[in-house]
Amino acid sequence: MSDEHADANGGARRNDFERVLTTVRERVDPDAEERERLREVADRLTERAEAAATDLCPDADVLQVGSTARNTWISGDRDIDVFVRFPPELDRETLEQYGLEVGHATLPDGHEEYAEHPYVKGTVEGFDVDVVPCFRLESATEIRSAVDRTPFHTQYLEQRLDDDLAGDVRLAKQFLKGIGAYGSDLRTQGFSGYLTELLVCEYGGFRDLLEAAADWQPQVELDPEDHGERETASPSRNEEGGVADLPFDDPLVVIDPTDPERNVAAVCSAENVARFQHYAREFLAEPAVEFFEPADPEPLTESELQEHLEHRGTTPVAVRFDAPDLVEDQLYPQLQKSLAGITQGLDDRGFDVFRATTFADDTAVVFAELAVAERPSVERHEGPPVHVPGHAEGFYDAYADDPEAYGPFIADDRYVTEREREFTAAADFLESDRLFDVGLGAHIETVLEDEYEVLVGDEITGLLEEFGRELRTYFEPRP
Amino acid sequence: MSDEHADANGGARRNDFERVLTTVRERVDPDAEERERLREVADRLTERAEAAATDLCPDADVLQVGSTARNTWISGDRDIDVFVRFPPELDRETLEQYGLEVGHATLPDGHEEYAEHPYVKGTVEGFDVDVVPCFRLESATEIRSAVDRTPFHTQYLEQRLDDDLAGDVRLAKQFLKGIGAYGSDLRTQGFSGYLTELLVCEYGGFRDLLEAAADWQPQVELDPEDHGERETASPSRNEEGGVADLPFDDPLVVIDPTDPERNVAAVCSAENVARFQHYAREFLAEPAVEFFEPADPEPLTESELQEHLEHRGTTPVAVRFDAPDLVEDQLYPQLQKSLAGITQGLDDRGFDVFRATTFADDTAVVFAELAVAERPSVERHEGPPVHVPGHAEGFYDAYADDPEAYGPFIADDRYVTEREREFTAAADFLESDRLFDVGLGAHIETVLEDEYEVLVGDEITGLLEEFGRELRTYFEPRP
Repeated sequence: MSDEHADANGGARRNDFERVLTTVRERVDPDAEERERLREVADRLTERAEAAATDLCPDADVLQVGSTARNTWISGDRDIDVFVRFPPELDRETLEQYGLEVGHATLPDGHEEYAEHPYVKGTVEGFDVDVVPCFRLESATEIRSAVDRTPFHTQYLEQRLDDDLAGDVRLAKQFLKGIGAYGSDLRTQGFSGYLTELLVCEYGGFRDLLEAAADWQPQVELDPEDHGERETASPSRNEEGGVADLPFDDPLVVIDPTDPERNVAAVCSAENVARFQHYAREFLAEPAVEFFEPADPEPLTESELQEHLEHRGTTPVAVRFDAPDLVEDQLYPQLQKSLAGITQGLDDRGFDVFRATTFADDTAVVFAELAVAERPSVERHEGPPVHVPGHAEGFYDAYADDPEAYGPFIADDRYVTEREREFTAAADFLESDRLFDVGLGAHIETVLEDEYEVLVGDEITGLLEEFGRELRTYFEPRP
Repeated sequence: MSDEHADANGGARRNDFERVLTTVRERVDPDAEERERLREVADRLTERAEAAATDLCPDADVLQVGSTARNTWISGDRDIDVFVRFPPELDRETLEQYGLEVGHATLPDGHEEYAEHPYVKGTVEGFDVDVVPCFRLESATEIRSAVDRTPFHTQYLEQRLDDDLAGDVRLAKQFLKGIGAYGSDLRTQGFSGYLTELLVCEYGGFRDLLEAAADWQPQVELDPEDHGERETASPSRNEEGGVADLPFDDPLVVIDPTDPERNVAAVCSAENVARFQHYAREFLAEPAVEFFEPADPEPLTESELQEHLEHRGTTPVAVRFDAPDLVEDQLYPQLQKSLAGITQGLDDRGFDVFRATTFADDTAVVFAELAVAERPSVERHEGPPVHVPGHAEGFYDAYADDPEAYGPFIADDRYVTEREREFTAAADFLESDRLFDVGLGAHIETVLEDEYEVLVGDEITGLLEEFGRELRTYFEPRP
């Protein structure tokens, strides 16, 4: 849509915009009953945790944190986070022990889980509850583990998020969910809840955030508490930073108000920053409820897959193996590393990768679509310049009597020979031990050493049953 | 051969070396009768030219130049160059007119030819004779055209080449002929006669030249008259030169003793410098008469060609056309330019060129052996970063509604689309008008506009009749 058209229809579109938001608010705002129930359960759990904690350590206290504490949860979200704070004098081992005792006292049916340190997780009246121990510190810059920071975030935002902004946070979160950019997990590498809340606060609302994002020129820098201004002379900042004002090279930089050393958007990929910008523009131009609705693709059918392959003329290959038993935040970085390694391995051998991705469920797949799946029997092998003492003669003598090699001849100032290529088909490489020469995630390497399968061309129809949705997303890509 | 082995057999090899040179000398040294006959004819022509020249211009004189004048011709060479020098006060037009008159008087059956200016060429008792007019100048730095330099070269070398060195020049020339590196024409881009003579003088003989060349570390700099020493403070040198002492970036630099601004080896390619180094080493290690014998390959047979293609697994393509009617020094640069342009055009479109060359006789051919001759139907098309105002939206809008294109989607911070590829087969590109988008030599472009033929795969057997020798050289490359 052209700018003139957009201007002429500005008023109508603003009405559309408000109408869409009204519809979305009805979906995402928790009603009075939902709030009441959550408040009731959260308060009860807090009291229970407080009693157990002060029993063990009179100086302990308990906080509700996260979106349910900050009134920014989306209707239907059922996460309650209870943080139990202990004085910093406590040693870590005792903190962990106390934390688990308080957790079990608060959640009698709960079980232990392990993040940076152990905590107790359980279900209470349909809510998913975490009881997490942390240290109570003077400042977020003193933290000993990431959870110690959370209370500071809640305190900071509680002071700034009124009901209007909290409502706009819910819209922003749902918008990011709709476009697939919500979540700071390492699979999504998108916008965390805290980041979303800071952005809405900083820009003053959902619409203002969209309008700002539509015009973002990365590197985008936000510094809500002006840490940069106050600390430009800090030597530690300069050591990290180099020439730029901010010591971060991410496309989006939001200095944590509670910790000037931290970019809240560090995990957010360039792709998700661009994606948010794209959809902000699209939504402002033509508002619609659909932007808030996550894609839920139908699995690709076999005939659709065949049609894509015929239309594209590429050669798909897949390395398929049992997904290692890892949490997603460990699994996806390993899949990404394996994808990069295998892609490089294919490219290095002349099998040009057109596009590639990974899928994971029960099995996991490194999937690559090749523009070149076969190479000739010979490859060019450049030797040293003829003038390099020793090395040049060594190269010449090594190939001069090789009946399989062409040359050596001279090109420019170098010896060149044309020798037999190790792999003339991409699948041969993937099926060989040389696959283990590329960078693979450690756990994935272990799984592959045990067993894996290589699918080529039409054989990838075998992926449809488990990864039909992923294949539709792959073959029908959108921003 | 290892160095120890070489040392242990040094004495025997030196004997081999001398025995080989003796055999070669018998072939290349003109005998007394040949010298006598040449001297007699040359003197007679000189006298005739002198008479005609001084008739026209009392101040004119006549010189014999070139290898026959310097006693460095190879037995059987039959070129006599007679230079007629006129005083520099003469205007160019008169010089040309006088030159032709003297030429016709000297060579009554001769005909006119045109290099930088016209001259007369003819045959006298089996010798090929050129009568060339030039200006008689004080110094070679004052020259008005390249021919004016020639008398200075002859004068310089006449003072330095004794009979021994002249004999070694003949060996060096024949060696360079044997390895295919002799001649400063633009097809060969090798060692000129004058360059060969300077190198033999500078290093003090053929064997010394070989031993030096075996250890050359380009950039190799020779400055027989120490111009560099004497003129380092010259501003014109500094303007041309930059940081290096010498204002040339050629691998071999031999400052013309008669003109410090000129590198005598400027036309000599890196490949031929390396080739000479390679064969110098090989010959010193294992002397043999064969080094002095130019390759004379048998034409490749059809079954040999088939065998090579099967063994290599590449796809040959050839663009064949009538050779434009040009002298070789014009034709070969145009063929080289067309080769570079077509190779680039293929590579740019994903048709990876494995090796390529040109042939010319009645027809001319740009021949490319492809590692990739076909590509998928789609090609990746990267758009601007999503944040670039205007350009990004323009790209997105252009492809969003294109039913043939995949995407746009976002990769890193950019829009990307996968659109239909213009050419999926290399031959389609070569047969299309887009061939004229690449850099072609002007005369070759004209010929191609009229008609050309594209041969693919087995069709290149059609080249065997005209280019069987060239194809053997291509498929059996040696240094």
